[in-house]
Amino acid sequence: MLEPKRIVRLEEDAVVVLDQRLLPDQEVDLVCRSSADVADAIRTLAVRGAPAIGIAAAYGYALAAASGEDLDAAVSTLAASRPTAVNLIWALEEMRRWEGDPAERARQIHAEEVDRCRTMSRYAAALLEPGTRALTHCNAGGLATGGYGTAVGALRSAWEQGLLEHVLVDETRPLLQGARLTAWELEEAGIPHTVIADSAAGAMMARGEVDAVLTGADRIAANGDVANKIGTYTLAVLAAHHGLSFYVVAPSSTVDLATPTGAGIPIEERAGDEVTPRFEARNPAFDVTPSDLVAAIVTEHGVHRAPYAESLAGAMAI
Amino acid sequence: MLEPKRIVRLEEDAVVVLDQRLLPDQEVDLVCRSSADVADAIRTLAVRGAPAIGIAAAYGYALAAASGEDLDAAVSTLAASRPTAVNLIWALEEMRRWEGDPAERARQIHAEEVDRCRTMSRYAAALLEPGTRALTHCNAGGLATGGYGTAVGALRSAWEQGLLEHVLVDETRPLLQGARLTAWELEEAGIPHTVIADSAAGAMMARGEVDAVLTGADRIAANGDVANKIGTYTLAVLAAHHGLSFYVVAPSSTVDLATPTGAGIPIEERAGDEVTPRFEARNPAFDVTPSDLVAAIVTEHGVHRAPYAESLAGAMAI
Repeated sequence: MLEPKRIVRLEEDAVVVLDQRLLPDQEVDLVCRSSADVADAIRTLAVRGAPAIGIAAAYGYALAAASGEDLDAAVSTLAASRPTAVNLIWALEEMRRWEGDPAERARQIHAEEVDRCRTMSRYAAALLEPGTRALTHCNAGGLATGGYGTAVGALRSAWEQGLLEHVLVDETRPLLQGARLTAWELEEAGIPHTVIADSAAGAMMARGEVDAVLTGADRIAANGDVANKIGTYTLAVLAAHHGLSFYVVAPSSTVDLATPTGAGIPIEERAGDEVTPRFEARNPAFDVTPSDLVAAIVTEHGVHRAPYAESLAGAMAI
Repeated sequence: MLEPKRIVRLEEDAVVVLDQRLLPDQEVDLVCRSSADVADAIRTLAVRGAPAIGIAAAYGYALAAASGEDLDAAVSTLAASRPTAVNLIWALEEMRRWEGDPAERARQIHAEEVDRCRTMSRYAAALLEPGTRALTHCNAGGLATGGYGTAVGALRSAWEQGLLEHVLVDETRPLLQGARLTAWELEEAGIPHTVIADSAAGAMMARGEVDAVLTGADRIAANGDVANKIGTYTLAVLAAHHGLSFYVVAPSSTVDLATPTGAGIPIEERAGDEVTPRFEARNPAFDVTPSDLVAAIVTEHGVHRAPYAESLAGAMAI
């Protein structure tokens, strides 16, 4: 497994991230010398995935503190880098609240997120039957979470327990996080996998080649509505149509009890030229899956089922 | 509108096709000097779209006849170039049956297919409400049909009648027929359009931005099951989930009464490296949409509704 500090780490005068835009072809460190550099790295997707950008923001805060930046300005810049993931805001609030050494707290947040991944992954793997052929979307792996992964973590755990047969990986247009990042992580983990065009997922389900769908989340509303990479909602509708379970695996830092429903989650619209530079295009980066299409939400606190307003609130109160 | 003979034509010693692989960046003619060259052009997608490959095969047959090729061998080579579209086989049977000048019959087939497109497009447009915001997939335009188009023809007709407000165009991975070909045709026709990633179609429906879905077909079984570009089935499931009408627009040459259901339609599996050259990938080029998800099938004979076994058989008997 990719070491957590290889994905994102704090050095004395920099935050260093593995530039995910260049994977799998090149493994290049991007060195951020200020909180603005970290915000740029988040905005341009050098580091991406809701938990990972929370960790990067925490390190960005610690770097700002160490180098005497204006912390209010640093928080504003970091918080504005991307709108959908709530982990970013959560991590910055954690940093502000901390009265000790910021670097210590940021490293704690990182370590805790990876620990949470391992815990939730065991809970999620326990939902899978032996011989499961899973389908996943985007990258909810170690790269997205600072280590181990959420949905991909669940697949790692299921593989280690002999429950997993194969993973279909949606390529995840327009930026191909599935075909570039998830396939790379599964290859490294030795887990059998095959990439498909996003639009082939329905046909694979119709052929009976999928047993369960697992994704991560960028923000989960209090009622269990899930914002995640564009295309997730389509998978949830397809899973329901085929009688398959659609599972969301995400840390509690992704749950936003202050947002009652998915309608309140801001959805990032990225530049159309990520889809095509030649014609007018629209490029919503995320969509919202209503909670009634979600079989279970799995966090480090366990497996949460509908009604989510109760199960999530109860878990967050732990 | 692109002239039919610009898309594919027969010359004295060649079949000339506009190379669709290079569009929209370059408009280059590909000159085929033998039926084997035409089969190559079909196999490699220089010419694609079920009606257009039928027309190209008819011209290929005429070229073979003119240049003294073995006609049985020519038919075998052309028929084997792609497996899913039945128009290819239909056109070759028409050519074999013809006792006059093969060039004359091939040009007739081309002209008839374009005429059928215009007729079915009027029928299909009449199904749309004023102000329709349509979604289409792949390219069922003039390029796919030798001129005018089926699903895109319906959009042209609806636009001319003031019924159409806007078209969302699925980019259609892996080969981007939507983002390259359909967007190009709609731009040329002056029809407002926006390209989206295939996986964004569900979110657009959930936002209430789609009123109807229109696609072409590569083969329609006797019971109304529709084989079409991979991703079509997903759109049909999504349309049903959102209470939207899913319409298929295709000439009668696409209807295969000899194949009882979609299960009997051969689905072409193309090379995985069209999806990603770096990891193992699967690349089914088509999927099958069960007829119960299809609101209507529109041919040049009119609007056919369930039960399709009866309505299609009745129309084909005309």
